[in-house]
Amino acid sequence: MMSTKELTPSATASVFTPEQLLRHWQGHRGLTRKMIEAFPEDKLFTHSIGGMRPFSDLVYEILGMAAPCLQGIATEKWQKWADAAKVNTKAELLALWDEATAQINEIFPTIPTQRFQEQTVAFGQWPGTCISILFYAIDNEIHHRGQAYVYLRSLGIEPPAFWDRP
Amino acid sequence: MMSTKELTPSATASVFTPEQLLRHWQGHRGLTRKMIEAFPEDKLFTHSIGGMRPFSDLVYEILGMAAPCLQGIATEKWQKWADAAKVNTKAELLALWDEATAQINEIFPTIPTQRFQEQTVAFGQWPGTCISILFYAIDNEIHHRGQAYVYLRSLGIEPPAFWDRP
Repeated sequence: MMSTKELTPSATASVFTPEQLLRHWQGHRGLTRKMIEAFPEDKLFTHSIGGMRPFSDLVYEILGMAAPCLQGIATEKWQKWADAAKVNTKAELLALWDEATAQINEIFPTIPTQRFQEQTVAFGQWPGTCISILFYAIDNEIHHRGQAYVYLRSLGIEPPAFWDRP
Repeated sequence: MMSTKELTPSATASVFTPEQLLRHWQGHRGLTRKMIEAFPEDKLFTHSIGGMRPFSDLVYEILGMAAPCLQGIATEKWQKWADAAKVNTKAELLALWDEATAQINEIFPTIPTQRFQEQTVAFGQWPGTCISILFYAIDNEIHHRGQAYVYLRSLGIEPPAFWDRP
């Protein structure tokens, strides 16, 4: 038998609250950080399969999308689309990652819930609702990190578990 | 200057509506279907890198999670966790895929919005909110499909564009 709660339409019902969305994203970002750590220093910047970009290049793309995308959603001021600046060591890449993590935590609470359903033009180029733009960034990270799992396996290295999100 | 709309807290504000979530998921599923189609028939069931499962096995996992997961969320009756039954041809795999697509479209609208925030125990094993379970399934699909992109590239085949979701 269904509960009364299930039969009553709720005006405040939400599939995802903004706080849950932030935690979900940062959980994924924590796993991606573990993937960066799991790579041998040289392979992070060089290892490739089938002509694809090394994981470092994929991380530059993810970083170029993450905080800048959220900043655009928060302010409607979009910078020009670009990958993050290149670095030379794993430590520098992790530092860039942690900087973005802090920026995301700072910007996210400034976004009113209804903003996620508003239209924007991401980086002045890609139109869509703010939530669709943000999910594009999150999904793109999962997609490229999945590719890095194959890179690690091809090097004989066990990747961190997919479900283990900090 | 901010609009009045942005200054007024809205009780009905939602990060994602159920309809958007379904469209988002089916968009991803449409892309995964294109990936199945892009594989040469034999490679779909055999090609592997670094000891990983061939794409067909990843698809069995995705299928075992998708409609059964939604069914559990909709009814709170969870079946035992299992991959989808194995098949022998790409056509049969695509038929399984299309069957799941129809099931998802049928089940999804029966789920009340507030249900997504309720706790459940997925497949009797994994506790969490319904929305977290569903996103686990969606993210797991993106993750494994990303791996299949590397498989295709290693075979010299150009995969469908990540952004091209039907």
